[in-house]
Amino acid sequence: MFTPATDPSGALVEQVDLAPLRQGPLDGLKFTVKDNIDLAGYKTSYGSPAWRDAHPAPIHNALCVDQLLGAGARCVGKVVADEFTYSLDGESFYFGTPRNAKAPDRVPGGSSSGSAASVANGLADFSLCTDAGGSIRVPASLCGLWGMRPSLHRISEAGVLPFQPSVSTVGVLADRFDVLNAAMRVLLNSPTLPVSSPRRILLLHDALEIADCAVRDQAGVALQRIAANIGTTIETIRFSEIVGEPCELNDCNLNGLRDLQTAEFQSTVGNWIEASKPQLGFTFSMAYEHVQKFERIAALDNMARCERLFRQINAFVAADTVICFPTTPKIAPFKGSLNTLKAVMDFYDPTMTITAFAGVARLPEVAAPLLTVEGCPVGLSFVAGHYQDEFLLNAVREMVG
Amino acid sequence: MFTPATDPSGALVEQVDLAPLRQGPLDGLKFTVKDNIDLAGYKTSYGSPAWRDAHPAPIHNALCVDQLLGAGARCVGKVVADEFTYSLDGESFYFGTPRNAKAPDRVPGGSSSGSAASVANGLADFSLCTDAGGSIRVPASLCGLWGMRPSLHRISEAGVLPFQPSVSTVGVLADRFDVLNAAMRVLLNSPTLPVSSPRRILLLHDALEIADCAVRDQAGVALQRIAANIGTTIETIRFSEIVGEPCELNDCNLNGLRDLQTAEFQSTVGNWIEASKPQLGFTFSMAYEHVQKFERIAALDNMARCERLFRQINAFVAADTVICFPTTPKIAPFKGSLNTLKAVMDFYDPTMTITAFAGVARLPEVAAPLLTVEGCPVGLSFVAGHYQDEFLLNAVREMVG
Repeated sequence: MFTPATDPSGALVEQVDLAPLRQGPLDGLKFTVKDNIDLAGYKTSYGSPAWRDAHPAPIHNALCVDQLLGAGARCVGKVVADEFTYSLDGESFYFGTPRNAKAPDRVPGGSSSGSAASVANGLADFSLCTDAGGSIRVPASLCGLWGMRPSLHRISEAGVLPFQPSVSTVGVLADRFDVLNAAMRVLLNSPTLPVSSPRRILLLHDALEIADCAVRDQAGVALQRIAANIGTTIETIRFSEIVGEPCELNDCNLNGLRDLQTAEFQSTVGNWIEASKPQLGFTFSMAYEHVQKFERIAALDNMARCERLFRQINAFVAADTVICFPTTPKIAPFKGSLNTLKAVMDFYDPTMTITAFAGVARLPEVAAPLLTVEGCPVGLSFVAGHYQDEFLLNAVREMVG
Repeated sequence: MFTPATDPSGALVEQVDLAPLRQGPLDGLKFTVKDNIDLAGYKTSYGSPAWRDAHPAPIHNALCVDQLLGAGARCVGKVVADEFTYSLDGESFYFGTPRNAKAPDRVPGGSSSGSAASVANGLADFSLCTDAGGSIRVPASLCGLWGMRPSLHRISEAGVLPFQPSVSTVGVLADRFDVLNAAMRVLLNSPTLPVSSPRRILLLHDALEIADCAVRDQAGVALQRIAANIGTTIETIRFSEIVGEPCELNDCNLNGLRDLQTAEFQSTVGNWIEASKPQLGFTFSMAYEHVQKFERIAALDNMARCERLFRQINAFVAADTVICFPTTPKIAPFKGSLNTLKAVMDFYDPTMTITAFAGVARLPEVAAPLLTVEGCPVGLSFVAGHYQDEFLLNAVREMVG
């Protein structure tokens, strides 16, 4: 355990204090940085003590960190990431389980577990973090925070450790929408871009079907309120209508993104692990067994399927359209409960069926902390077209703000 | 010098023989791989002996290599790259100057110098390589080859050494258009995507103005032939008309991409150099002095300018439009002539003014070996809209094929 004893949130790897580089729209805001993003002079651990010890400290901040410092924000901490960011549960063998402030006996979700905990426990206004398979959206949902995964490659990844280059994104977790919006607009490099209002709101039926009953009901209530807010109706749509041919939502993950992600992870972290034979934490080493055995040739056809799904979904999602669904199908699992294969599958499979939709379509997704089930938070997600990140932020403000 | 004595092209770092993984559209074709792209079991040097010695051999091929092997092609060599791929001239302090087959007393261009030489000297049908600031397009132009830089991030970079994440692409150099087309369609993951014909061909006047007189004249002749081929006229357009406000073509580089590239290079290779203090070649160490001194905060406003140019250019370039211009403003410089600051500036500044157009706009560009000046080759380039890579390949076939 490396968590400083003085941090009851369990989020901090290291307290830091980087002053703003100049004034700007983020004046007065404090942020933390996930431990796979470079801070000059501090070792980046990637959630792995072995990685940390094998690599020198960077002399430059990641460019996205400098963007935030250059817009007036102050960096106050380096925070816990799941080991190699290859997890959605937020229980680190080495760095512990950051505290889920709204459901303390449950996991915070991962891999941006420390990012979520640092914000939800009041250490920072927002956190700079990363999302490939759901690493921002899942902790946003399970901890009751705002989170955004932008369109693929909208934000510079210079100084962010390579993970899954065709899927990885840099984004933000925040406690308030206006903070999320301000930080994302800085990172998106489009402070003055004009935006329009949403005209068409679609509810993705397939995601509702996967969700727990109570989540589904709560989502229905929240969407009724949103529809009333903006004076429109909400249409229900099936994934096969979006794609324009018979298919299932879980094709995005099972027959597409999952294999691409595994193959890409082999090429980034996998090569290093095979050459260095580092100590691996228990949970990660279980997951890595699958990575090791994976036959890359299986990924080639799935890459073409991902490209096809990307094109089909993008041909459907017009510039005035927002698609919504529960961010995760369930509330957070109890801490320590993901200790059987069945429990792991029950958590990951339906979760990734939903998160892979924006992933395969390379679309921006905002997770909003709008639902409560059994006293625990669940997110409601909004997705817009490719590179329509600014439109999405504006649409969410109009619908929910 | 590491070039095998048996290779008169000077292209090879190492001869390899990787059989196809299965049959496919690239059956019978041989390719080489630039030495910043992983081949399993071989050290990747990044054009730097120091980098090579400090890093273990990968156990996986880059995913783009597996795509080609999985489509029937055979890999026959690992080929020279300029040091850290941070150059456009193709003269490596460590690996020598690969032979420019059509102009043997001149440089091949870089950084994909070995890729170009391996194809132009008949060692392979095509080469898998990378382009950020022009590293595919410049050697294509100077060696008389077909080359393509795809839309940003269309091709997986898993197993490709991180360079400039917001600018870097994976692409191909080839000796024939049909080979370029076949290899790119495999890498683009869209073998069956339907494509339309070009309706509007625009000649970028600002690039012509920068080009040498003879290059400009030759481009005019070639474009007349193309216009006749497809029965259309070619309109001339100014960069300011594309962007929709007063500006210069060199804004793409000088007030945009250049600083972003420098900042991103600091975060990837720069961090490693600062931590490891490796031996650096003479030419690279000169260039690196500028990188070391660069103040990152200067890049922040330029990042926003890049985003704005991207949006402006993309709003203009419709799905049926092709923009053309000379790939480079001049023929290749003589070997050993880039030895004064003035000579270096005369080569780089006008070249990057042109190459930064597709770079900042994240657009696909095909360089076609259509011009000859003083007996030396120069390319004619064609650019299409974002993610319109397949349309561009088809348009080039109809115009030139």
